[in-house]
Amino acid sequence: METTHKKYLAALAEQVETQLLRYVQVTPETERQAQVVEAMRYSLAAGGKRIRPVLVLEFCRLCGGTSETAQKGAMAAACALEMIHTFSLIHDDLPEMDNDDFRRGKPSCHKAFGVATALLAGDALLNEAFQILADDLFLSAEQKVQMLHVLTKATGASEMIGGQIMDMAFETRNDVTLEEQTAMCAAKTGALIRAACKLGCIAAESTKTQRTLADEYGAKLGLAFQIVDDILDVTGSEEVLGKPVGSDAQEGKTTFVTLLGLEEARKRAEILTQEALEILEQFSEHDFLTDLTRELLIREK
Amino acid sequence: METTHKKYLAALAEQVETQLLRYVQVTPETERQAQVVEAMRYSLAAGGKRIRPVLVLEFCRLCGGTSETAQKGAMAAACALEMIHTFSLIHDDLPEMDNDDFRRGKPSCHKAFGVATALLAGDALLNEAFQILADDLFLSAEQKVQMLHVLTKATGASEMIGGQIMDMAFETRNDVTLEEQTAMCAAKTGALIRAACKLGCIAAESTKTQRTLADEYGAKLGLAFQIVDDILDVTGSEEVLGKPVGSDAQEGKTTFVTLLGLEEARKRAEILTQEALEILEQFSEHDFLTDLTRELLIREK
Repeated sequence: METTHKKYLAALAEQVETQLLRYVQVTPETERQAQVVEAMRYSLAAGGKRIRPVLVLEFCRLCGGTSETAQKGAMAAACALEMIHTFSLIHDDLPEMDNDDFRRGKPSCHKAFGVATALLAGDALLNEAFQILADDLFLSAEQKVQMLHVLTKATGASEMIGGQIMDMAFETRNDVTLEEQTAMCAAKTGALIRAACKLGCIAAESTKTQRTLADEYGAKLGLAFQIVDDILDVTGSEEVLGKPVGSDAQEGKTTFVTLLGLEEARKRAEILTQEALEILEQFSEHDFLTDLTRELLIREK
Repeated sequence: METTHKKYLAALAEQVETQLLRYVQVTPETERQAQVVEAMRYSLAAGGKRIRPVLVLEFCRLCGGTSETAQKGAMAAACALEMIHTFSLIHDDLPEMDNDDFRRGKPSCHKAFGVATALLAGDALLNEAFQILADDLFLSAEQKVQMLHVLTKATGASEMIGGQIMDMAFETRNDVTLEEQTAMCAAKTGALIRAACKLGCIAAESTKTQRTLADEYGAKLGLAFQIVDDILDVTGSEEVLGKPVGSDAQEGKTTFVTLLGLEEARKRAEILTQEALEILEQFSEHDFLTDLTRELLIREK
């Protein structure tokens, strides 16, 4: 990735993190509940690539939303989305779900705060996402309702949460088809990535065509992203990833690598990335997002 | 309670249940996730008194919201609120929380569907509440945003979810004060009841004064409701309640009865109810709600 783009990405990620932690603070009103607020902050600060909020902010810019109002509205939507993503990770890691003790090299939320607090912190983050929209000063009521529609659709039983149920059901099967795996990933991972792109469009009050293109780009990127994740679980370095390599295979999980083989999986991720890049060509000032899209294909973690 | 009022209450509760189950259905889109949708429906259908949705509908009527548009908007808000209430019960019952195997005489959601599915069903219900608002055809964008503000504030870390954290923290202590217990109940139980009254006002586009009165009524009713709950845990009939009597005492929990004694607790509930009734006097056509408020004081379950 170009150095200027790397710096720009880091700056955006930092802005997002600062804003996330500004939304969730221990106040005199929440002093008695400080424990759950601390758990929320812990998971929000645990980082990650902040791809989703960056996509919100960038699609807003790409669709002409360069005014302060548009950018601040986009930031609110970006934080709302990242809170939903963080909620899903906390609940996903719980003992009765994936039972992961570590997340990005740090103890997962329930390891640090206990299961009950982690459960409630996840609940509170999902709720907080919508509270951010409700109380934002830069988005119009119409924009808020449109964003609420996009976010709740992407999160609900037909998409992200539904994808988690499918994922769990697939774990007990050894005959999962490529079509099923693709549908599961589109729901579990793809929905929020597509939502990110659409939220940016809404913040910029984009055209319908732009929103459709953003949605298609998100679908391609989301699937490529998941395929690369599956590849890294086989080829990655434990040190770089911050999590054990080969855990999918050990658990006998179906992945794009088990379904397609390593070479074909790589090819698919490349094709999807290429298609995503072609969609970006239809927006001006897409250099940074083009570079980021390529980077996600060749990433090492 | 008067027979006509009883019938009216039953009719409202039935309308709410029908509408709740209409919102959450297995569709071709959610066929693969049918399990989580079934768990959501199971808990939504498990009944209860439907006090919160009834309060939404009635405050809408009391504030002059008698048009079809207002009533349908109020029904959407009523269902959204009942979904949040149901989500909180499902998560509250989980093994790492209150670990309750039964809810209203039926196996709790995780007993019927497993912990992972119950967890996700709760998540999906919280999300669905906001999706209902986003997609409703009868509420204006302004009303939706106002309702979203009321609902997320009442649900979040400063109120309902915060109250759950306080409740858990109190379980390990034997020096909880009356002031602390009152604050915990105001957050854990009171917030959603107050939200119900306010949502009805928003659906009716009420005056600000009406909304303030509704909020005060909700606060009184919510506290009275919790005190009566604590009294019933001591004096109630297991058969009528559908849950073991004396479970609070057995667990050494602080309740309004342990803090005040039975007689004083009864007196407080009576005073709060009286104050709530006086607030209702300021609305016309309050006969049904007056009767319901009295009924909640003398209820046996």
